[in-house]
Amino acid sequence: MSVGRTVKIVGLGALAITLGVEWLDRLFRRPCPCPLPHGLDTPFTRLLQHLLSASMSLDLCVFAFSSQELSRAVLLLQTRGVAVRVVTDKDYMAITGSQIGTLRNAGISVRHEMGAVHMHHKFAVVDSRLLITGSLNWTLTAIQSNKENILVTEEPDLVFPFVREFQQLWDSNDPA
Amino acid sequence: MSVGRTVKIVGLGALAITLGVEWLDRLFRRPCPCPLPHGLDTPFTRLLQHLLSASMSLDLCVFAFSSQELSRAVLLLQTRGVAVRVVTDKDYMAITGSQIGTLRNAGISVRHEMGAVHMHHKFAVVDSRLLITGSLNWTLTAIQSNKENILVTEEPDLVFPFVREFQQLWDSNDPA
Ligand SMILES: [Zn+2]
Ligand SMILES: [Zn+2]
Repeated sequence: MSVGRTVKIVGLGALAITLGVEWLDRLFRRPCPCPLPHGLDTPFTRLLQHLLSASMSLDLCVFAFSSQELSRAVLLLQTRGVAVRVVTDKDYMAITGSQIGTLRNAGISVRHEMGAVHMHHKFAVVDSRLLITGSLNWTLTAIQSNKENILVTEEPDLVFPFVREFQQLWDSNDPA
Repeated sequence: MSVGRTVKIVGLGALAITLGVEWLDRLFRRPCPCPLPHGLDTPFTRLLQHLLSASMSLDLCVFAFSSQELSRAVLLLQTRGVAVRVVTDKDYMAITGSQIGTLRNAGISVRHEMGAVHMHHKFAVVDSRLLITGSLNWTLTAIQSNKENILVTEEPDLVFPFVREFQQLWDSNDPA
């Protein structure tokens, strides 16, 4: 394992807190030059910050995606030119509150498992460099209520297998 | 991050393969002195090997536990004197096929979330030293069919927060 890489726990237990869209913008513009206090630091804001650090690509592989705030973050990245790809579960994407339709309507490429199996991953890879993974589905219940965990790492030995897994899922679920 | 610690991916994608109880014994006795080939190496056998490496304690925190093979592994550890503690989800433990009753009948201490929230973790800590975590619930579907991931690490910066989280869940769900 290489030295100097950061491996840290973003959240354990409930991630708590709800953020409005204005916070997303604020987080995106960090470090902020204004003299106001910027003390909001929760597992969820840290998750958003890691996501919003994407400058080139976001590869997202989540079983369930219904969180409006995480959806806004993904849409924000897309409008800033980040290449967003999403792999999700076929059954879950059809349920009420799923954000998958919103993402597709915004032009984001979404693919889903074609077979009978469940795509049960919950991970994201930012710029092919940073891995975000854990038990957390991208739902409000998961974020606000459940006991959950998220790991964030730049350790290549950990990140690369997930990059490979994403590409494999992406290629094998090509609808074309 | 300390150098020389092992962080590795046990499994990505379906873990495949079903093992009989004789394999558990065989894995437990590794390295085996017999002259037979021991070529069975799958993500699931690696998961079992990591679990069966416990010599003092196994702290298990899983939302869903219905895999008979993983149940056998946990029971085997208990008969060998390993201190096993299980935290699980209140709703899931009541469903058909849950192994929680079997574990309790064997004298293993099981606690569950008392509140309305879901205990959605899927991790195990072996001897307070080794962390096994990921998307995988301990169910046959998860093991045999789903796309899942498991990380295994001895990195203290990653292990300790999970040790702490387990103890917190254990204490806060004390039925006494
Ligand atoms: Zn500011
Ligand atoms: Zn042998």
